[in-house]
Amino acid sequence: MTRIRNIKELAELAGVSTGTVSRALAGSELISLKTRQRIQALADEHGFRPNVMARNLRIQRTGAIGVLIPLGHETGQHISDPFFITMLGLLADALTERGYDLLLSRVIPTDTAWLERFVDSGRVDGLIVIGQSDQAATLDKVAARYKPLVVWGGYTPGQVHCSVGSDNAKGGELAAAHLIAQGCERIAFFGDPRAQEIGQRLEGCRAAMARAGLADQLSVLPAHLVAEVAHPDIAQFLGSTAQRPQGIVAASDVIAMSALSALADQGLSVPGDVRVIGYDGLAIGEQTVPRLTTVAQNLTAGAAHLVDMLLRRIAGEDTDSVVMDPELVVRASA
Amino acid sequence: MTRIRNIKELAELAGVSTGTVSRALAGSELISLKTRQRIQALADEHGFRPNVMARNLRIQRTGAIGVLIPLGHETGQHISDPFFITMLGLLADALTERGYDLLLSRVIPTDTAWLERFVDSGRVDGLIVIGQSDQAATLDKVAARYKPLVVWGGYTPGQVHCSVGSDNAKGGELAAAHLIAQGCERIAFFGDPRAQEIGQRLEGCRAAMARAGLADQLSVLPAHLVAEVAHPDIAQFLGSTAQRPQGIVAASDVIAMSALSALADQGLSVPGDVRVIGYDGLAIGEQTVPRLTTVAQNLTAGAAHLVDMLLRRIAGEDTDSVVMDPELVVRASA
Repeated sequence: MTRIRNIKELAELAGVSTGTVSRALAGSELISLKTRQRIQALADEHGFRPNVMARNLRIQRTGAIGVLIPLGHETGQHISDPFFITMLGLLADALTERGYDLLLSRVIPTDTAWLERFVDSGRVDGLIVIGQSDQAATLDKVAARYKPLVVWGGYTPGQVHCSVGSDNAKGGELAAAHLIAQGCERIAFFGDPRAQEIGQRLEGCRAAMARAGLADQLSVLPAHLVAEVAHPDIAQFLGSTAQRPQGIVAASDVIAMSALSALADQGLSVPGDVRVIGYDGLAIGEQTVPRLTTVAQNLTAGAAHLVDMLLRRIAGEDTDSVVMDPELVVRASA
Repeated sequence: MTRIRNIKELAELAGVSTGTVSRALAGSELISLKTRQRIQALADEHGFRPNVMARNLRIQRTGAIGVLIPLGHETGQHISDPFFITMLGLLADALTERGYDLLLSRVIPTDTAWLERFVDSGRVDGLIVIGQSDQAATLDKVAARYKPLVVWGGYTPGQVHCSVGSDNAKGGELAAAHLIAQGCERIAFFGDPRAQEIGQRLEGCRAAMARAGLADQLSVLPAHLVAEVAHPDIAQFLGSTAQRPQGIVAASDVIAMSALSALADQGLSVPGDVRVIGYDGLAIGEQTVPRLTTVAQNLTAGAAHLVDMLLRRIAGEDTDSVVMDPELVVRASA
């Protein structure tokens, strides 16, 4: 039996064009099932196994979806972070169960062209970016010319890219209003507002404080999103504040957990001395001591939206951004 | 300014070969830093952005590591399963922080060539397979000719592929011996022994039972690894057994959690009526009611071994398999 080594030889043997062979071996529905089966059988019979990358170059399809985590403002964050890993699990289930592979990349932007380079690399059929970080302008620039791109994050009027996320301003407002209703006057916001979603959460807090006549009672600690990094800053903030806050709005559940631990270290009780509210609604918040009150985002629905909209955009449709309602989940910490 | 559209034009402009341009743009250390910088500057100046897949084809390097999850025996399992997602987070941190992307693929083997197809596809520089499932023969066949392959799983004397995992027989033995020492005589093993690691855990249980003269007191329920799927089978098993087991060795923490929930549904107390031991040592076992006694595998060390050995194999070294000691972590359930 002659061993076939390339598409051209197989095409000659099958009496069809090389393009037909490529598409047939890729399972393209442009080729009749009968022809696909005939060509696959010939390939198997003659021991031919195509280089998928060479094939992808020819047919401009990779079977993979990129999942990018840009860390513009927080270079230390890990993929095993509870928020990322929760979102990644949901996306990986939805994509791999539809037969896509998932190309996961953690990007530290060193210039403004990182996203263009990825999009132009031809490695994926579409792209999900988790978090706008401080890269909204870059996302808009690429979205203007590259359709199969969806972004987990906040919505800003006028933005070009398609986003799925919760109403972060409303979430921040829910958190601060809850603390105010419980009698807190001095409130601290723990989170770095350079990340777009976190900036919106802070604006929501400010609005609730202003409405209650407490605009000058809000302090901000740009706490890091990595718990171990945030912890000493939070400990120092709580230890040195002459006017210790009565309530804390944390920009994430992970930051809230750092705050709980720093408060416990200083012998302060939660919610007795200080009330704490997290953000995200991760499962881990049900296990903290005390159990964490939090502004929950529906990540399951969010991941389903991201995948659904990406597949529609790959198919050439336009899709609108989705802004989901956040929900205050009251447990024991506030 | 002329816009450069391909490697050939850039090579002519730079006065070097196309191979040199490819390697320079890929950051290869085969090319001097000065030449790399000169070629990158020319590329930037003329707006040239190479197709990464075309480049990878030329230089036979992709910058990506494949992480494959073969589901030969359990097609319903999700990537968001607590074991997979824990391992995936650890691997993703280690790989992405070294600059690799991670190509994640969930494979339902339909024939014996699935792994050969992936390896021959040219999409990755190396491959980590999580779990041998029932595919040990396929792994051995590919490992005989493809060096950059490492596998999370059990070790079997004579195997060809390089594995990292715990001593599953010893782990099963630790679990059963602990139950026997606590007075259990009738013991049930919950797990499907067709998966290689689970089969080894069952053998360990059998050995401990035989040594105690209880060989005929072991029953086996091939419980599914997905909690929702396992739950009704476990409920039925516990409800219908005339001789209810006094102790349960679960093949995973997830199965153990299903058992805890089924026992609670039937009004049985743990450990009073039935003792339960899990396997894996996942963080989630610290949150169960009662807290789960389990045979812990050191997944952090395991992931570090997998990445370290894969990178050494990519560099051309041979590496031995690693068999880690499992550890019985006694909490409240047994």
